[in-house]
Amino acid sequence: MLSGISRRSRALRGHVFPKPLPNSSSINLARLPPALLRPRRFMCRNAASDNEEVAAKAAAKIADTGAPTIFDKIIAKEIPSTIVYEDDKVLAFRDINPQAPVHIVVIPKIRDGLTQLGKAEVRHAEVLGHLLFAAKLVAEKEGIVDGFRVVINNGPEACQSVYHLHLHVLGGRQLKWPPG
Amino acid sequence: MLSGISRRSRALRGHVFPKPLPNSSSINLARLPPALLRPRRFMCRNAASDNEEVAAKAAAKIADTGAPTIFDKIIAKEIPSTIVYEDDKVLAFRDINPQAPVHIVVIPKIRDGLTQLGKAEVRHAEVLGHLLFAAKLVAEKEGIVDGFRVVINNGPEACQSVYHLHLHVLGGRQLKWPPG
Repeated sequence: MLSGISRRSRALRGHVFPKPLPNSSSINLARLPPALLRPRRFMCRNAASDNEEVAAKAAAKIADTGAPTIFDKIIAKEIPSTIVYEDDKVLAFRDINPQAPVHIVVIPKIRDGLTQLGKAEVRHAEVLGHLLFAAKLVAEKEGIVDGFRVVINNGPEACQSVYHLHLHVLGGRQLKWPPG
Repeated sequence: MLSGISRRSRALRGHVFPKPLPNSSSINLARLPPALLRPRRFMCRNAASDNEEVAAKAAAKIADTGAPTIFDKIIAKEIPSTIVYEDDKVLAFRDINPQAPVHIVVIPKIRDGLTQLGKAEVRHAEVLGHLLFAAKLVAEKEGIVDGFRVVINNGPEACQSVYHLHLHVLGGRQLKWPPG
């Protein structure tokens, strides 16, 4: 886990250092659809270009196939991540392309059809509540409980890039309005 | 409820027309704290100025008093709002300062201590799940279920301006990254 000091200095430099994915000798990344391995920074950044929208739409098509996502590898701990909270239902880890000094992704460990919030059914209400409560626990652990934003992207127009429901928890800086 | 056509033409003109609050002859607005009647467009817009941060901090102080918010008047239907979804636990209505062609606010009808997500306790998990599921229902009703973003602001750094937990559901345009 990154220390508060290193996170702060990284934010002050105004850019981020995504952790490298492990090389293919240890994990067969070829089995994951290429669009899911594309760094999010190339998608939906500021004014979304035609190319970015095409990429997001491609990811959406993969979603409908029920294909595994990079989150399956993170849950299985086959790809390293910096986990900040975990219980029997959810996992929370640092975003590899943080958009704020603190930027955590919270996911259900079992996708159960929840490729995105728009697929939620009544039976999912319990895990949805658990995810939001976990977001609050994460904010407490990260020392941002007095100032944080939770964001859920659904579909290409909202810049969703991984089709496994996830909540972004952002904080540690003044967030702006509108939210994207 | 606004028709799709009127919403679209409003969006094309590139600016919004907040609905006026009712005048004081029908509702005693003087009983609400002044900070809660301040239009949100003056707070946390793009780069947050010192003044904006002061205003947000003032609203946060009112929250801790347990004072009523403008949402109490909306729930009681003492202030008109354009309701798009309602059940026994939640109410969803159009934001008076929309940041997208579709911008709905979803709130619990009973605040029960949830001035903000950061105050959530284990007992709130059920209503949190209901709120997120209601956000999905709202997206379906509004025709944006394939592309929408849910945002929860917590505290002045996230531009929270009403201290009654609420989810923003935004869609109808390409949303950007980062989310504010």
